[in-house]
Amino acid sequence: VRATPYLIEGLGHLSTVLVDDATGSAAVVDPRRDVDVYLDAARDAAVRITHIVETHLHNDYVSGGRELAALTGATHVIGAGAELAYEHRALRDGETFDVGGLRFTVLDTPGHTPEHVSYAVADTSRAEEPALLFTGGSLLVGAVGRTDLLGADHARAYAADQHRSLHDVLLRHEDSVAVHPTHGAGSLCAAGIAPTPWSTIGYERRNNDYLRHRDAEAFVTALLAGQPAVPSYFARMRPLNQAGATLLGGRVPEPRPLRVDEVDAAVRRDALVVDLRTPAAHAAGHIPGSLSIPAGSSFGTWLGWTVPHDRPLVLVLDDPAAWDDAVRQLLRIGHEPVLGYLRGGLRAWADAGQAVEPGASLTVAQLERTLGGSQVERPLVIDVRQPSEYDAGHVPGSVHIGAGDLPNRLAELPHDRPLVTICASGYRSSVAASLLRQAGFRDVSWVADGVPAWEACGGPIERGGATREDEREATPTGAAHAH
Amino acid sequence: VRATPYLIEGLGHLSTVLVDDATGSAAVVDPRRDVDVYLDAARDAAVRITHIVETHLHNDYVSGGRELAALTGATHVIGAGAELAYEHRALRDGETFDVGGLRFTVLDTPGHTPEHVSYAVADTSRAEEPALLFTGGSLLVGAVGRTDLLGADHARAYAADQHRSLHDVLLRHEDSVAVHPTHGAGSLCAAGIAPTPWSTIGYERRNNDYLRHRDAEAFVTALLAGQPAVPSYFARMRPLNQAGATLLGGRVPEPRPLRVDEVDAAVRRDALVVDLRTPAAHAAGHIPGSLSIPAGSSFGTWLGWTVPHDRPLVLVLDDPAAWDDAVRQLLRIGHEPVLGYLRGGLRAWADAGQAVEPGASLTVAQLERTLGGSQVERPLVIDVRQPSEYDAGHVPGSVHIGAGDLPNRLAELPHDRPLVTICASGYRSSVAASLLRQAGFRDVSWVADGVPAWEACGGPIERGGATREDEREATPTGAAHAH
Amino acid sequence: VRATPYLIEGLGHLSTVLVDDATGSAAVVDPRRDVDVYLDAARDAAVRITHIVETHLHNDYVSGGRELAALTGATHVIGAGAELAYEHRALRDGETFDVGGLRFTVLDTPGHTPEHVSYAVADTSRAEEPALLFTGGSLLVGAVGRTDLLGADHARAYAADQHRSLHDVLLRHEDSVAVHPTHGAGSLCAAGIAPTPWSTIGYERRNNDYLRHRDAEAFVTALLAGQPAVPSYFARMRPLNQAGATLLGGRVPEPRPLRVDEVDAAVRRDALVVDLRTPAAHAAGHIPGSLSIPAGSSFGTWLGWTVPHDRPLVLVLDDPAAWDDAVRQLLRIGHEPVLGYLRGGLRAWADAGQAVEPGASLTVAQLERTLGGSQVERPLVIDVRQPSEYDAGHVPGSVHIGAGDLPNRLAELPHDRPLVTICASGYRSSVAASLLRQAGFRDVSWVADGVPAWEACGGPIERGGATREDEREATPTGAAHAH
Amino acid sequence: VRATPYLIEGLGHLSTVLVDDATGSAAVVDPRRDVDVYLDAARDAAVRITHIVETHLHNDYVSGGRELAALTGATHVIGAGAELAYEHRALRDGETFDVGGLRFTVLDTPGHTPEHVSYAVADTSRAEEPALLFTGGSLLVGAVGRTDLLGADHARAYAADQHRSLHDVLLRHEDSVAVHPTHGAGSLCAAGIAPTPWSTIGYERRNNDYLRHRDAEAFVTALLAGQPAVPSYFARMRPLNQAGATLLGGRVPEPRPLRVDEVDAAVRRDALVVDLRTPAAHAAGHIPGSLSIPAGSSFGTWLGWTVPHDRPLVLVLDDPAAWDDAVRQLLRIGHEPVLGYLRGGLRAWADAGQAVEPGASLTVAQLERTLGGSQVERPLVIDVRQPSEYDAGHVPGSVHIGAGDLPNRLAELPHDRPLVTICASGYRSSVAASLLRQAGFRDVSWVADGVPAWEACGGPIERGGATREDEREATPTGAAHAH
Repeated sequence: VRATPYLIEGLGHLSTVLVDDATGSAAVVDPRRDVDVYLDAARDAAVRITHIVETHLHNDYVSGGRELAALTGATHVIGAGAELAYEHRALRDGETFDVGGLRFTVLDTPGHTPEHVSYAVADTSRAEEPALLFTGGSLLVGAVGRTDLLGADHARAYAADQHRSLHDVLLRHEDSVAVHPTHGAGSLCAAGIAPTPWSTIGYERRNNDYLRHRDAEAFVTALLAGQPAVPSYFARMRPLNQAGATLLGGRVPEPRPLRVDEVDAAVRRDALVVDLRTPAAHAAGHIPGSLSIPAGSSFGTWLGWTVPHDRPLVLVLDDPAAWDDAVRQLLRIGHEPVLGYLRGGLRAWADAGQAVEPGASLTVAQLERTLGGSQVERPLVIDVRQPSEYDAGHVPGSVHIGAGDLPNRLAELPHDRPLVTICASGYRSSVAASLLRQAGFRDVSWVADGVPAWEACGGPIERGGATREDEREATPTGAAHAH
Repeated sequence: VRATPYLIEGLGHLSTVLVDDATGSAAVVDPRRDVDVYLDAARDAAVRITHIVETHLHNDYVSGGRELAALTGATHVIGAGAELAYEHRALRDGETFDVGGLRFTVLDTPGHTPEHVSYAVADTSRAEEPALLFTGGSLLVGAVGRTDLLGADHARAYAADQHRSLHDVLLRHEDSVAVHPTHGAGSLCAAGIAPTPWSTIGYERRNNDYLRHRDAEAFVTALLAGQPAVPSYFARMRPLNQAGATLLGGRVPEPRPLRVDEVDAAVRRDALVVDLRTPAAHAAGHIPGSLSIPAGSSFGTWLGWTVPHDRPLVLVLDDPAAWDDAVRQLLRIGHEPVLGYLRGGLRAWADAGQAVEPGASLTVAQLERTLGGSQVERPLVIDVRQPSEYDAGHVPGSVHIGAGDLPNRLAELPHDRPLVTICASGYRSSVAASLLRQAGFRDVSWVADGVPAWEACGGPIERGGATREDEREATPTGAAHAH
Repeated sequence: VRATPYLIEGLGHLSTVLVDDATGSAAVVDPRRDVDVYLDAARDAAVRITHIVETHLHNDYVSGGRELAALTGATHVIGAGAELAYEHRALRDGETFDVGGLRFTVLDTPGHTPEHVSYAVADTSRAEEPALLFTGGSLLVGAVGRTDLLGADHARAYAADQHRSLHDVLLRHEDSVAVHPTHGAGSLCAAGIAPTPWSTIGYERRNNDYLRHRDAEAFVTALLAGQPAVPSYFARMRPLNQAGATLLGGRVPEPRPLRVDEVDAAVRRDALVVDLRTPAAHAAGHIPGSLSIPAGSSFGTWLGWTVPHDRPLVLVLDDPAAWDDAVRQLLRIGHEPVLGYLRGGLRAWADAGQAVEPGASLTVAQLERTLGGSQVERPLVIDVRQPSEYDAGHVPGSVHIGAGDLPNRLAELPHDRPLVTICASGYRSSVAASLLRQAGFRDVSWVADGVPAWEACGGPIERGGATREDEREATPTGAAHAH
Repeated sequence: VRATPYLIEGLGHLSTVLVDDATGSAAVVDPRRDVDVYLDAARDAAVRITHIVETHLHNDYVSGGRELAALTGATHVIGAGAELAYEHRALRDGETFDVGGLRFTVLDTPGHTPEHVSYAVADTSRAEEPALLFTGGSLLVGAVGRTDLLGADHARAYAADQHRSLHDVLLRHEDSVAVHPTHGAGSLCAAGIAPTPWSTIGYERRNNDYLRHRDAEAFVTALLAGQPAVPSYFARMRPLNQAGATLLGGRVPEPRPLRVDEVDAAVRRDALVVDLRTPAAHAAGHIPGSLSIPAGSSFGTWLGWTVPHDRPLVLVLDDPAAWDDAVRQLLRIGHEPVLGYLRGGLRAWADAGQAVEPGASLTVAQLERTLGGSQVERPLVIDVRQPSEYDAGHVPGSVHIGAGDLPNRLAELPHDRPLVTICASGYRSSVAASLLRQAGFRDVSWVADGVPAWEACGGPIERGGATREDEREATPTGAAHAH
């Protein structure tokens, strides 16, 4: 048996291809939507994917289960509570199925979601005891799946379920059993996940802080505290996964280069220009009204946070080769209308005489000088990181508004002072600055390399003061946390 | 302007991607059915395929024009006589269209087919005069497209058309104009094509034998003589290309490994096992009733000759990696029902206790000994090459029946003598031997390395005696000629 | 921390790339000689290989440690007993070193070899306790490294060491600790390794039969019994790894196509022609004097068994693309003089009038008929598998001589009877048949699909009778066991 | 025969792989230094590279001829005047050699360099007449190789040679003969090369302006006028190619990620930090003292212009994947000491508390406002393009100093006014701005999208006034012209 994890960095999503070479059979657990990676793996190993195995209805991405089943003819299995609207096999606690010589046993483990199941897998060629567990969003490496994604109403009850699932089901296994979760480092489905794709029951039993709470009440409190806020696209995922996403035929849509006049016409209709170039490039000059969401592993998450999923997009890329990754990220969050990308990039736009709007960025040295200036020109510094990051240290005098929360709190901001956004790098602050500019604020800049550079260069630091429960609910974060 | 030819070896098919970098536009001329190669090329060059350009309704492969148009949104152009049943732009002689700075002018050049057109292309950034010609099946490198593929009735009239198309249209161009044809070496659409993907008008004017016949009558006679016979699948291509092939979504179907019991069941229903392993492997042992069509560039052609296009297939492969090429070749000839391949190959079959049937091959030394043996055991040697190859030299006493013609001439063959097939390698003779075995002949073998090895080792050679006009019509050949 | 195992199938060799993403550091444990796979992995992950970690002086392959150190500047670490002749860092029991946040601790674990060490690795970002063990040739998945490779003299003493290493060092770890060995399924360094690249201490503690012997004496006996015999090239590996292999500059030598006359001249000098085509192809006809060692994962092992390492080779390939894998396998066993491959394959040879020699293969049905024939023609069936395979069931009347042992036992074989070799497929029997033919036996054939097919088709089976201790020592086996 | 051109974009370098499939032979004409592309091509086509063919001693890049000969054993041929210091075959006018069925005839065609030869190639399988010409730096597509690269002293005499080579040697060929030059669009070895890799004699005869000068004197004048200036590294290429470049073993050096402290230490010694990020990123903040040379096809050319070839470099990359292309470009211009790249990029630098220096860029709208401001703050606009570009239209009041000429003309520039550099994009102006900052100018910015955007947005344009012959000699340009 060979278990190969496939990580999507920004989403912190871990799917697994489990191969039984002796029989040439394979299962794919919790597949991503762009399934070519699994087809290639099966092809290379000359095995047949016989089962697609889902642990739960995902909240953070569009499942590729239906797509993969259509392309391979594999059986799509999921816990009975999921009630998929398309072809599948619904399984109940204790039921088993075989992938070649590998025996899967279904374990009800509600908590992260109510229909959540885990799977214990025995390699029957060696022993009847389970060799590994697929734990989905229950037991993670260094963490535990959160239970508040389906709303605050159920969060405590689900957390109690999670506690039972952990202690009464999963931790009953031997220390030696391997643990393969679906949510890895970077995922918004839990706080504090370690950057290791798999672990063992024993190692987690001893080293996972969440498992130390034998008392359910304390566990619930700990689990509900400190969770990152989630992008708005999350709300669409569960129903979409239940209904089944559009089939793609196994292909990422081809790149479509657009001429300047085509982009111009699309924008005049209803398209949004999304600028995937670096924050600095956007600051140096961009298409007026364009949104800065730089390429990188958080691109999809931030787009899913800030743009309605049916808004047609035109992309501005540093390099046409960036198309593939960008469109994959959009597919994974279910954003499908992408008209194309601006051929020749911003230079083609400028050379055609179209307006280019400057943004502005500051180094920490420049920020320091500005803050020392006269009252009139002194900017309002907006820290757009997570509350917990702000609490841990921020520029004195800066206010805290999470980047994703900005659209809801524009009324609080002054139009007669320069605004400066700051984060931990320049990613979230660039997104925030472009949101502010879209909202009509004129004098907006962001700080390159953000608070860490400020601190490293000896700037004064103030601590605490941001985290209020109400705020936490509304603050975007997460995948972009690393930036 | 960059013209990049893409060759399919067995079919001798040349398509061209023509790129105008200045405007980021590209045209694809006479695309193959599996179009990923063009999508990849456009992606790498960051250009948009704006036009799909067809010179004629192809007789030898399924066009990828419709597929490529669906995936890219490009305009599909073809001569007005083609009357496609799906979306396209029909063009008349003298009409022009632009691919960026490249101006295409349509030239009626009937002959190879009645609706055939060529395209003269000017690079307007340099000059108004044409820089290159797409000549499809009219002027080829070292040859000229045959005119008898739509039946003997029209062959002479079409040949006269071809003569006019060459001399009154194409050869009117400057010596310097590049010539990019669609049929290259290996194609059955002409005899004697040189293995160079493109040429120039002047070089062909001086060195292409067919162009020396200024007299139409002599040209017609020369063109109709010596053409290779064609596989039976050719007859389906023209109507299929007119109606439009099934869309594939840009993906070659995934490999489907089948268990021994699944293969067994499929065969009991209606599937044919096609053995793509080497002739020697088939001779050493094979699934009873399986047809030997070894992998390689002629695979599709031979399968299209010998198997009805709606017969479900199970493939036996040396290596699962052979799936991709085999299925592409099948798609190109329009053979779509492929159930999968036997996982584990023949050894899995044998280990499961299924019957394995031996074939037999002889070295030329063994053949020599056998022929010197007693009258009783002396085999009938059947030379399955082209008549022209047989005429040029064969084993004394061997009779000539082209491999593809065998099914029609079984009644001529004795059941009480060993049969030995021979060709120029072991490819066609292995196919022929497996056809004979399928037809109930018991003692059949084939000669490894064939007549060239026989001759090289000093075996006696007899010349002449095979070519009769009636026979020519019925003899398969062509792509497999090289073997 | 991410641990990615890299398997070489035929050798059953597992190396591991261990990455600490937080610091961008990586270690490679027990690298293969063709190191491009590690360079590519480091490049893709944008990490620096800072350490090359060896568990012992390998007996079964040429280490890539020196090569990788030269190309990356990484530190090459190994147990102090190894005494490498080139630059390295020698480590003693209990010493530690860090690869980013990963702490390696050296554990003396002699047994498989006297200088053997294991490494316990803690992910200090989570805990001080070890998360995983690199166990090299000590504790394997489902097995234990053998101790008789350095000669029978030390085998028992080393086995006692191994027992102590297992129980006093490795099994002292928690059940949850992951176990990453260097020898995997297919390796000749142990018997009975499971086809799973890694396991855990607890799972092995309960399910690994070798660990049940708490009594040292019983363990020693069990470990020394039933080990496969080893190819002769093994003897060269330890000194070669100690001295350091030739540097390759990170590149597999380019394929060198040779003309027929060049091959002919090379053979007249001193080159050996090795035929990598299928057994069936070799049987149908081959270059006289050529050795049949079909391509596949056992190619290198069999060549290392049957050919002196300084004999210049010319390869005959089914496909030029087979060059790369063949030459990698040769590099891994330290066979460097490869002149090139025959361009155009056997057909070019035959067409040039060079002699082609036939071999012969039989289906099990043909074998059955032959065995039922008259005494005169009745062949001697030689079963060339492992003694244990022969014992488990063979064709009645067949004698047992392992394929690799054949050269030493030619005197036992009759020249006046047909010889038929048989194995479990057609791989070892084809190698054996070509060895016999090289040795002057005229009438030699081998049985396609071997004993399993014989049994599956209802042939009678006799059991027992082969295993004698003296014989065991001399019988080749191993990687080829699977065939 | 198949001729496949390989283009290096920035250098405008065209090498050709010429394959004769019938014999499996190939020649590589004027190979680049990183030769893996040719090895891969030969491997894929299963042919042997038998000849490496050089037309002249190159001035613009390091030849890969020696490297390729070492890796393949091919014969390295070049005109007798080249006098290579390493193994080769020197050929005289009229001598011939065969690559399979392709006959090469040497033609002395001095002019671009004194030892320059061309090669006429006949495909003897079709005709004795040449089918194509390799014209190196003599006849190009739409242009003719310049003759002033070896110094002004010989330029006129060499130009007269070139005229004779064109009219008395090359144009004597038939119109139909294909022309494959070594210098393509983007090359500094000529002005006005068309972006088409190959042409024909007839097309060039009619459409190449340089060929219209039947009068030698007029040709010489036309050829010497309007040539772009050349980077300083050119001077090293001819002697280096004569002496032979260091062998690389076929591998581009591995990426070496460096920690912040390692970069810091290297800079304190003698290393130069080269920032390959976008101009905007450099403007937003960069390592003090670093040089901005953005990645892209002109990177090597600009580095070869501005940095001594033995200066150790540390690269700052947007993405570690940019390493490969950057190092290839450095190898091609013979810049070998590259220490590594800054792991984690500028953010790691900033987070470690190292100083980050801002640059500044302006949009054309910002430039307009600044120019309209008070005299005191009004910047000096420096147009760093080619003289010919400046003449064709520039911002009123801007002065002309080519980017590469800046280091020699610093004394002319004021320290008490802001300096603004402008080019046609932001590439050359960013390089120039970073050179000025290195030289101690404090207030330096550059204009995003440059003069084309200025003009497109309605800014006033002034024409003429820059081109003076003395200036032309010293102005960098060329590959970067397109930016």
